Amino acid sequence: MKPFGPIPSGFDSIDGQLSIGGMTAEALVDQAGDTPLFVYSKELIGSRMADLRRAMPERLSIHYAIKANPYSDILQLMSGLVDGFDIASAGELDLALAAGQSPERISFAGPGKRDRELRAALLAGVTINCESENEAHRALAIGHVENIAPKLAIRVNPDFELRGSGMKMGGGAKPFGLDAHRVPQLAREVIASGAVWQGLHIFTGSQALDADAIIETQGNVLALAAQLTDDIGVPLPHLNMGGGFGIPYFHSDKSLDISRIGAALQGRFNTLPDGLLSTKFAIELGRYLVGETGVYLTRIVDRKESHGVTYLITDGGLHHQLAASGNFGTVVRRNYPVAIATHFVAEPTEVVNIVGCLCTPLDRLADQVSMPHADIGDLVAVFCAGAYGATASPEAFLGHGPAREILI
Amino acid sequence: MKPFGPIPSGFDSIDGQLSIGGMTAEALVDQAGDTPLFVYSKELIGSRMADLRRAMPERLSIHYAIKANPYSDILQLMSGLVDGFDIASAGELDLALAAGQSPERISFAGPGKRDRELRAALLAGVTINCESENEAHRALAIGHVENIAPKLAIRVNPDFELRGSGMKMGGGAKPFGLDAHRVPQLAREVIASGAVWQGLHIFTGSQALDADAIIETQGNVLALAAQLTDDIGVPLPHLNMGGGFGIPYFHSDKSLDISRIGAALQGRFNTLPDGLLSTKFAIELGRYLVGETGVYLTRIVDRKESHGVTYLITDGGLHHQLAASGNFGTVVRRNYPVAIATHFVAEPTEVVNIVGCLCTPLDRLADQVSMPHADIGDLVAVFCAGAYGATASPEAFLGHGPAREILI
Repeated sequence: MKPFGPIPSGFDSIDGQLSIGGMTAEALVDQAGDTPLFVYSKELIGSRMADLRRAMPERLSIHYAIKANPYSDILQLMSGLVDGFDIASAGELDLALAAGQSPERISFAGPGKRDRELRAALLAGVTINCESENEAHRALAIGHVENIAPKLAIRVNPDFELRGSGMKMGGGAKPFGLDAHRVPQLAREVIASGAVWQGLHIFTGSQALDADAIIETQGNVLALAAQLTDDIGVPLPHLNMGGGFGIPYFHSDKSLDISRIGAALQGRFNTLPDGLLSTKFAIELGRYLVGETGVYLTRIVDRKESHGVTYLITDGGLHHQLAASGNFGTVVRRNYPVAIATHFVAEPTEVVNIVGCLCTPLDRLADQVSMPHADIGDLVAVFCAGAYGATASPEAFLGHGPAREILI
Repeated sequence: MKPFGPIPSGFDSIDGQLSIGGMTAEALVDQAGDTPLFVYSKELIGSRMADLRRAMPERLSIHYAIKANPYSDILQLMSGLVDGFDIASAGELDLALAAGQSPERISFAGPGKRDRELRAALLAGVTINCESENEAHRALAIGHVENIAPKLAIRVNPDFELRGSGMKMGGGAKPFGLDAHRVPQLAREVIASGAVWQGLHIFTGSQALDADAIIETQGNVLALAAQLTDDIGVPLPHLNMGGGFGIPYFHSDKSLDISRIGAALQGRFNTLPDGLLSTKFAIELGRYLVGETGVYLTRIVDRKESHGVTYLITDGGLHHQLAASGNFGTVVRRNYPVAIATHFVAEPTEVVNIVGCLCTPLDRLADQVSMPHADIGDLVAVFCAGAYGATASPEAFLGHGPAREILI
């Protein structure tokens, strides 16, 4: 038997079934039309944002990194909840604008921006986080041709990283941003060119669960920003401090203590150096805002025994839930939080393997988990499905097609 | 410096550029309209098939597992080259029929077939490889309702596996097929029901490069089929022996010696037991038929240094080439064969990291490879891109959109 991750709080039951927004899992599937289905909860997103606002300094803007979940209804909801969107491509620019986000609240980071992406973003009035001298020069050239002043920030590759983060975005050689020591020269050049100087973007890592690590890193980010601002010679207009706030996916993972992070950040905001006194500060979060607010529902198509092992075979799989299958940048597969949605409050009675419908041994949703008895027709819920689910999975693989999505 | 995989044979150069089908990489991009681009070679697919036909016993049918690459032009080409298609979903059924493959040459395997998929396949006249007793019963029930005799085979979960295979599909508990000892009873039930008994499907693993392992496994498959046939009591009409033929992706991988496999199989065909004398034998191959015949072309958007490391940043990435990025069921990332397509015959002069355009450290196409100097605008070629590329990758991730594809 293997453990699985903690089921996020906020999920209820009706008549023994998992319920979301006052509807049972079966009712949600009815409404959406079929399984597999991603269900996202407005209420849980709203309360997550409210908790975060309470914990963080009032001065801190909160941006949504739409790569985490670009589903249109979520973008529309988030557009009214957050202070800005962070995008990573011209495709995401279109999505952000379609969701009603105003361009001056959008910033664009990504190491391989094409000229046509830079042009689209600059014409829309979006801030470009320049990832290299070359990219800044291309943006300036496009601004010249188009007769507009590009809004430019510089992404910094810091010498430090976020301890314990799932993905390290700083500390050593990286394809992202400029090494810190090269930033002031480019910043002065950007400012001298007549571009709109938007400041710095310092992203150090993602998916950290240790508040102390985030507190330490935010201190390093502020210190680096202050030092670079001194070198640049003008007050810093804006600092995107990155994100890094993780969510518990696996057994023994604990929720991040955001109140300590907020208190520490407020303390630092109270003692800012001169160059940062008028700076607008933002953090960019994706997974933290939506990850725990979504559930993936998939129906059991077969139940079988093989060599004494019970398999529940579902109509879903890694084509929608690549990360949960353990195949997206994972060394050792561990179980996401999972449940039998149609027997949500029943006691476990057996150990089963839950797999997807793809004809490959990679397609695992839960290994050797203790569950209540489930049969063909029952629904399985995989939690923590609100971020890096549908769009971070190979939906065309084996021709089963995309999952449905609803925001409820 | 790290090694990269062997560039498959059959690729030429024109004016120093990689050429495919008599066209330079740049001309191919012009014709397709843009990068990123998958280029598949008709000529290489044809010669691969011809080599395979020469090596294998004439009696052996060769099926194409369309999951490896379901691009419509490839399916049309393969439809005329192979003896059958293997599909894994109703979506792939539609693709196979649209490519002109006749239903009696299509078989459908996959552990989580829905009723509506079974119905579509049975009505089309496709053979179902039943993965469980329950699935066979559902297929029989649908046949009864629809007043047709279902064409049914049984997929066997063998007790042995294919040694050295990249993915093991046999040996112990599996979600695929019936444990071997339970096959005869279900087969007799299927035969007694009046269904069209199509025989057995025994798939043991994929991506093996050791001819001896495949020869040994094919012997085990034939022995198991003979034993099950004795138990079932009627001659076996058809045996799908699976695939398992691998291609070299990584440094020090060697091409599979198919002539030895063919000779060994011919020897076994010469001494078949009675129950298999009239059996039609097939192997199903996907990756082996198309994997080495495709190239992924992506353009360098930026070239930058970070802490002494040179990065070539392309407009492609893991959203099209998840396996090459090392994030699809891989424990230790290794480099696929890669080249600067626009300087294909030039000598290497520098060590670079080639990355994709996605804003994540997972997006790596080649780590620390020795290459000729390349600049913004040059094309990078990732080889072995003909199978498990476009559809096995999260194309919607970060909103950059799908790659183009051409068959030339």
